[in-house]
Amino acid sequence: MTDYETFLSPTGRQLTESAIRRMGTVVARPGDMVSFAPGYPDASCFPWPELREIASRLLDSHDETALQYGPTRGYAPLIDAAREVLANRGIAVTQAEIIVTSGSQQGIDLIARVLVAPGDVVLVELPTFTGAIAAFSNACARLAGVRQDGQGIDLEHLDQVWAREAQTGRRVKLLYLVPNFQNPTGALLATDRRAHLLAWADRRNVLVVEDDPYGGLYFEGAATEADTRPLRADDRDGRVLYLNTVSKMLAPGLRVGWLVAPSVLIDRFDTAKQAVDLTSGILDQRIVHEALRQGVADRLAPALRTKYRHKRDVMEAALHEHCRGRLSWESPRGGFFIWARLTDGPTDAELLARAIDRGVIFVAGSAFHVDGSGQDTIRLSFSAPSEERIAEGVRRLSACLNG
Amino acid sequence: MTDYETFLSPTGRQLTESAIRRMGTVVARPGDMVSFAPGYPDASCFPWPELREIASRLLDSHDETALQYGPTRGYAPLIDAAREVLANRGIAVTQAEIIVTSGSQQGIDLIARVLVAPGDVVLVELPTFTGAIAAFSNACARLAGVRQDGQGIDLEHLDQVWAREAQTGRRVKLLYLVPNFQNPTGALLATDRRAHLLAWADRRNVLVVEDDPYGGLYFEGAATEADTRPLRADDRDGRVLYLNTVSKMLAPGLRVGWLVAPSVLIDRFDTAKQAVDLTSGILDQRIVHEALRQGVADRLAPALRTKYRHKRDVMEAALHEHCRGRLSWESPRGGFFIWARLTDGPTDAELLARAIDRGVIFVAGSAFHVDGSGQDTIRLSFSAPSEERIAEGVRRLSACLNG
Repeated sequence: MTDYETFLSPTGRQLTESAIRRMGTVVARPGDMVSFAPGYPDASCFPWPELREIASRLLDSHDETALQYGPTRGYAPLIDAAREVLANRGIAVTQAEIIVTSGSQQGIDLIARVLVAPGDVVLVELPTFTGAIAAFSNACARLAGVRQDGQGIDLEHLDQVWAREAQTGRRVKLLYLVPNFQNPTGALLATDRRAHLLAWADRRNVLVVEDDPYGGLYFEGAATEADTRPLRADDRDGRVLYLNTVSKMLAPGLRVGWLVAPSVLIDRFDTAKQAVDLTSGILDQRIVHEALRQGVADRLAPALRTKYRHKRDVMEAALHEHCRGRLSWESPRGGFFIWARLTDGPTDAELLARAIDRGVIFVAGSAFHVDGSGQDTIRLSFSAPSEERIAEGVRRLSACLNG
Repeated sequence: MTDYETFLSPTGRQLTESAIRRMGTVVARPGDMVSFAPGYPDASCFPWPELREIASRLLDSHDETALQYGPTRGYAPLIDAAREVLANRGIAVTQAEIIVTSGSQQGIDLIARVLVAPGDVVLVELPTFTGAIAAFSNACARLAGVRQDGQGIDLEHLDQVWAREAQTGRRVKLLYLVPNFQNPTGALLATDRRAHLLAWADRRNVLVVEDDPYGGLYFEGAATEADTRPLRADDRDGRVLYLNTVSKMLAPGLRVGWLVAPSVLIDRFDTAKQAVDLTSGILDQRIVHEALRQGVADRLAPALRTKYRHKRDVMEAALHEHCRGRLSWESPRGGFFIWARLTDGPTDAELLARAIDRGVIFVAGSAFHVDGSGQDTIRLSFSAPSEERIAEGVRRLSACLNG
């Protein structure tokens, strides 16, 4: 018998499984399960007729570039369409400063591979996105957590953690964060903190990885487009690497995102991507290009904001009705998630075990914490289930909380 | 100014650019250029109406799983369809022994990341596929070249190189090879060598990475399906990791391939892929699943074999007519490539420089050699250009050879 364990690389041995992906496997099991686990968008909002029409035309055209290998950097007209999307968010970039990625996750992974040497420090929020934890861990980074509050990352603690890590002689290279409707907390980084954060990054010689999948999903009455202005828009010192994706605004099954960075780094990401997957899906890129060109995403955005705000309201109303006193949370001003604290009783893992038995799942909060904390927190995604299922899921959850 | 060079990881600093990808950039330039460089399939052979029909139906269905996030392992019915494809090649695998990848390139990259520790030795053929060189190099492997002849890899030299590397205390972990119509040489590994290779891998405790994109493209009269029987089909010791893709048999713009390996390794590849891109394109997977289910690939295969054999014939006839005495080659029995030796005169790089000026490109042979040799070789792809363009390109090439 071959002993495959002896063939594993250091990365292969210490691979970090994504708690969110694991919950995706649970939800794929048969049975009546309400899932508040993965942050899936609502599939009923996908622009089905538009995408069908676009795909049909592309495949009718027999235009060979729609199915042939293409440049690693991405389909040039898609890059231009992405630049327009970015310009509307205040970000002006040249073609040389952008690369198409297979979703934002690939952007994070390319950054980890090209920039993180084993032992380098990557600063992340407490809690943070598990996909980022996994990608940086696989590059053998040392992850150091920085506290956040309702206004986003705590800048004082950020500098303390930086100083603590720098003092040990380690290189603090990156700060990864999700400023808009953070995953998992839903927090929106305050405007004044954004300016301070940019100055801090330049002072401390740290690059900022700004992951922005939810920026377009601000909720009327709670946040405005101006509140979600990307850090990258005001980055005068070339400190910010910016990640964007169509996963939440069109459909995630089309694996298309883009990474904005200084051109000297884009060249490296391009070379790395050549060996990773040659190119992102060509038909996907063509479909997304057409959808952006025709304004499909722009037309859809207001409806998405209304839809997800309503789902948030439904979940909050149900939580108020059924879980009062057992859970506490701040109302998210956009995005997909309610981040709840267990005010007494079970840990996140205990509650999850009970919840699976009762037909409801979520992600245990500790999975988002790089410091081993978070056992008193859970992430509830309201984005995918219908309003009725949200209410039913919260009822099941309350039964778990009560015993 | 931020000095981005100081932020690069060891991988980021030593990234290896693919010569094939670079030539892809050349061919993308405007102007009348005949390209024998990238191994692109013939786009006129893509099953356009079938793919159009399939995509339309999928997007008409509003079946949410066609555009939603899906399992990292791959769409389960696609995995079953791939198992049938494999069974027809003599490879029997369970669902647990296969993972869908974003093309074969991602399979190579996952293997490199999960199995190769910095300094580990990966044995490759001289010459070998540049995408494999790049992926293994990016994992900081030490690449050691093994000679081949018209019958494929030289088993005696293989063991000599193994012994030489093992003697230095390095771990020789993998042998990467393309047994069927190798990239770039077009060589078909002889049947008796296949059996010996498997026994060797077990004796030396090496895993074999068998990359098989061209196996279905054997040319009538020159090779049979039996000649292309994968190593994996006769692998009794669990030594072979097998890579397959639809890029050459359907269309490469759909980034869908699969990696076959022992289930304990598939679990690791799955975890690694979670952080790499979450999942391969969902719509792509659904389209490929339907195309396989409906037998599109099987119906297409005989026409592809005829088409590419004819193109080989056209290229060989033109080479005989115009380049006799200047180039020598063995007629490939399948696949996309003629591997030619420059019998006198310029080096591969000198010839390429002249060729670009005259409106024809190819890949310099040295790019495929990990030992710095190969300056007297070039790779000519006959797969993509039309018959007329092949003849025109060879005429231009002959003008370069003659001055």
